[in-house]
Amino acid sequence: MEPGTSESGLNRIALEIQYDGTCYNGWQIQNSGKTVQGEIERAIKILIRKQVRLICAGRTDTGVHALGQVAHFDLEEKVSLQKLCIGLNGILERDISIKNAYNVLPDFHARFSAVCREYVYLIYNYYLKSPFVTNRALWINHPLDLDYLRKTAGYLVGEMDFKSFCKKNSASENTVRRIDSIEIEKYNEVIVIRFKGNAFLHNMIRIIVGTICRMFKDKMDPAYIVEIIKSKDRENSGDTAPPCGLYLRSVSYQPPLSSMESAFLEKMPF
Amino acid sequence: MEPGTSESGLNRIALEIQYDGTCYNGWQIQNSGKTVQGEIERAIKILIRKQVRLICAGRTDTGVHALGQVAHFDLEEKVSLQKLCIGLNGILERDISIKNAYNVLPDFHARFSAVCREYVYLIYNYYLKSPFVTNRALWINHPLDLDYLRKTAGYLVGEMDFKSFCKKNSASENTVRRIDSIEIEKYNEVIVIRFKGNAFLHNMIRIIVGTICRMFKDKMDPAYIVEIIKSKDRENSGDTAPPCGLYLRSVSYQPPLSSMESAFLEKMPF
Repeated sequence: MEPGTSESGLNRIALEIQYDGTCYNGWQIQNSGKTVQGEIERAIKILIRKQVRLICAGRTDTGVHALGQVAHFDLEEKVSLQKLCIGLNGILERDISIKNAYNVLPDFHARFSAVCREYVYLIYNYYLKSPFVTNRALWINHPLDLDYLRKTAGYLVGEMDFKSFCKKNSASENTVRRIDSIEIEKYNEVIVIRFKGNAFLHNMIRIIVGTICRMFKDKMDPAYIVEIIKSKDRENSGDTAPPCGLYLRSVSYQPPLSSMESAFLEKMPF
Repeated sequence: MEPGTSESGLNRIALEIQYDGTCYNGWQIQNSGKTVQGEIERAIKILIRKQVRLICAGRTDTGVHALGQVAHFDLEEKVSLQKLCIGLNGILERDISIKNAYNVLPDFHARFSAVCREYVYLIYNYYLKSPFVTNRALWINHPLDLDYLRKTAGYLVGEMDFKSFCKKNSASENTVRRIDSIEIEKYNEVIVIRFKGNAFLHNMIRIIVGTICRMFKDKMDPAYIVEIIKSKDRENSGDTAPPCGLYLRSVSYQPPLSSMESAFLEKMPF
């Protein structure tokens, strides 16, 4: 069977999407307010006159950005993937852009087929505010110690119950997740925290960032985070760091999207 | 005589300023519209109840940014430089920030004492639009050749008449300027063009960028730019590149500002 075509004759298409989430009420369509999903579904309707339903890999919250969100939808007819990308980019406002489109297998699911998600959190760590990181990073105006952050975050790598780092009253019943790695680097004034894992709970990364920064400020022993984990109580972790610093960087699948027919080659002549 | 205090008892203060110029009608106060100068003068008036007049090193146009603009003003009383910076940053909107303040000699002049100005122009060179460089760089969606740009720009280094690269009906009668260097580098998808020189004509950098990019697209011999220079006619150069890619990066003085009493040390513990 041809990728993208099911027995019922439906073609499944996956989009790779980047957006500045500042002006959106998150990914998912709400009763009111502009959402990323809503804008892209509207653009598809304008372009190919079909109302589709997009299903994404990670539903980002209000103000959270994406560099490589993935979402799939089904169409009855075949479309040119290049024309789809170019056409959608021509309709969408400039804070959303379609990076690529793929013909995927009918059993591909943007959320459930994902094997790894990578998020980055940016902290602008300088005594002075900068006009150029507004809505792009969390500003912390006292110097953070990278070794402290790395050591504290290290206790969170592995499979464990992250209930202490999950938004209260979240829908998730099972709060066990696996973090594969947390890497922390500094580039000039910007600290980049990279999270890789199979899946993350609601607000999990933002609560982790808020917790390790708070623990540093309070001069707590890095190992104390083990007590926070064990307590399984959101009351014991730190504030939820603001959404503007968080980016869904990429989502990986097996087989990878790069092995599918796509609108653009990975390596353009740039 | 103490720096910052003249015989008449006036204290001269220089501010180092960064701003995202997107929402401003340039630096200089106009009859209508929000300007960077206007906002800072208003903030000074709120903070120390004095109407001052700021004189800057380079009057940036609408939409042009600054990482290190310098402007001076005079006050009758002595003020704490730290309190001045912190207070102004507390009043100013987040797209303008005061980086530092200096007590300078009474004969210091932000514009006329400047010995070197550095501007950078950013080009986002990728086939796909990016939400994250909106208002921050010029987007060119065909691949530019760095060697071509370097070779063409090389003809503009030195002292010469830049009349072909000056906005028509500009106030400048003397259009001879000296460019000390033009350096072109690429970092991922972003081409950074750095200009250093004593002073620049109105729109000069934007016209140079527009011209060398146009010449590349039209496959013209790099040496043809010598003919454009010689013609001393704005009709022969290219379009004025948009303001969003241009940043006034720094202004140098002799003696340097770093040798003056300042609000913040150059090396903060970050």
